[in-house]
Amino acid sequence: MENAELLERFTTLEGRVKALEDHVAILRLIYSWGPAVDTGSSDAAGALFDQEGVLESDLSRLDGPADVVAMVESEGQQALIGQGCAHVQSAPVVNIDGDRATAIAYSQVYLHTEDGHQVWRVSANQWEFHLTPDGWRVSRRVNRVIDGQPESHHILVRALGERS
Amino acid sequence: MENAELLERFTTLEGRVKALEDHVAILRLIYSWGPAVDTGSSDAAGALFDQEGVLESDLSRLDGPADVVAMVESEGQQALIGQGCAHVQSAPVVNIDGDRATAIAYSQVYLHTEDGHQVWRVSANQWEFHLTPDGWRVSRRVNRVIDGQPESHHILVRALGERS
Amino acid sequence: MENAELLERFTTLEGRVKALEDHVAILRLIYSWGPAVDTGSSDAAGALFDQEGVLESDLSRLDGPADVVAMVESEGQQALIGQGCAHVQSAPVVNIDGDRATAIAYSQVYLHTEDGHQVWRVSANQWEFHLTPDGWRVSRRVNRVIDGQPESHHILVRALGERS
Repeated sequence: MENAELLERFTTLEGRVKALEDHVAILRLIYSWGPAVDTGSSDAAGALFDQEGVLESDLSRLDGPADVVAMVESEGQQALIGQGCAHVQSAPVVNIDGDRATAIAYSQVYLHTEDGHQVWRVSANQWEFHLTPDGWRVSRRVNRVIDGQPESHHILVRALGERS
Repeated sequence: MENAELLERFTTLEGRVKALEDHVAILRLIYSWGPAVDTGSSDAAGALFDQEGVLESDLSRLDGPADVVAMVESEGQQALIGQGCAHVQSAPVVNIDGDRATAIAYSQVYLHTEDGHQVWRVSANQWEFHLTPDGWRVSRRVNRVIDGQPESHHILVRALGERS
Repeated sequence: MENAELLERFTTLEGRVKALEDHVAILRLIYSWGPAVDTGSSDAAGALFDQEGVLESDLSRLDGPADVVAMVESEGQQALIGQGCAHVQSAPVVNIDGDRATAIAYSQVYLHTEDGHQVWRVSANQWEFHLTPDGWRVSRRVNRVIDGQPESHHILVRALGERS
């Protein structure tokens, strides 16, 4: 085999490995959200987002890391942390396209109560990411409670489209 | 180092990367099930299965994509979707052997009710896949509720066998 | 391009693939725990741990595989298995450093009851692994219930540190 041919196969393989590493890096961002908000690590929660990053839910719209930091430090979130809360992200369907990526996933919030642990919320999540000089960051996350509302279905069907 | 030796190492590495990509593709099939059935995307749910694919549970046996499509479009499933349901698949133990693969995993179904979200079912799942010209497809899935029945244990112990 | 330069890029790539494979192997250990303890496969549960492996929780401290085996065979665990229990591990944040690795993850235990499935415990988990001649093994696992106690927070914040 010619060196040139081997080099081409090799460069292709490097790209495939890079895609797998990107996948792992994106999962890591998603799975870092719970540990950040459940421990009050407000800076770490904010740092998952890009400067223009948006977190939109049924209850609020947070614009940029500073809003995320403020939410984590709010009385409401601090009360949940003291009570015992777990923001658990289920494994997503991920699509990567160059320096952009999306992920669709379920999430559950569990709360500790006098009667043990309760499922507080089950939601559909649409995550959007982009690759910055400092690594992958969240550019947008939309969270909709799964209670029959069409908005939650609109998110979930996005898992069924094209494949990366 | 000789070119021949490098080529051999390189070909081995290509195979290892392919195995990792297969793993990701199989996870994607599993994690697509919930978004398909929770949104009534019947064609997408059916398309996860091979033409001879079987979905067997405590309640029913579905033969081929057409049966899966019919189940998703049934009154029962449509009622769950309207109420708000989430079929969440936990991360599996996967074994890949050429163009065949298996996965063992837990799954949970959450339902939205007037009292918030409830855990409706927790099950053991045995997935079997094979690689078709169009990519990986489900050839068989067996789902057994975890309620102490030996059938659920028979599935779960399969996670503990040989490693790929 | 010179053969020497290609060889260097190639060796680097082999290392990156090895890191991805290590990641998969570590996930497999974590996801094998539930199937082992939920089916009473005491030897398989013990074999996940190194000879010096420790499993520490709010309730007990198990030293080495023999203690793990005894716990799985205990009356208490056998009763849970008969009732129907599911020890589900959520996807972790993993850090690998040579032949050592750590993972931080949530876990949930579901129990089957007359009123359906209940969330029995939601916990924070700190896993430590090392690479033995027989593959990756658990050297330490600490499990703390998420009920507002600082010990659970001390575990979860470890997910937010350095990245591998």
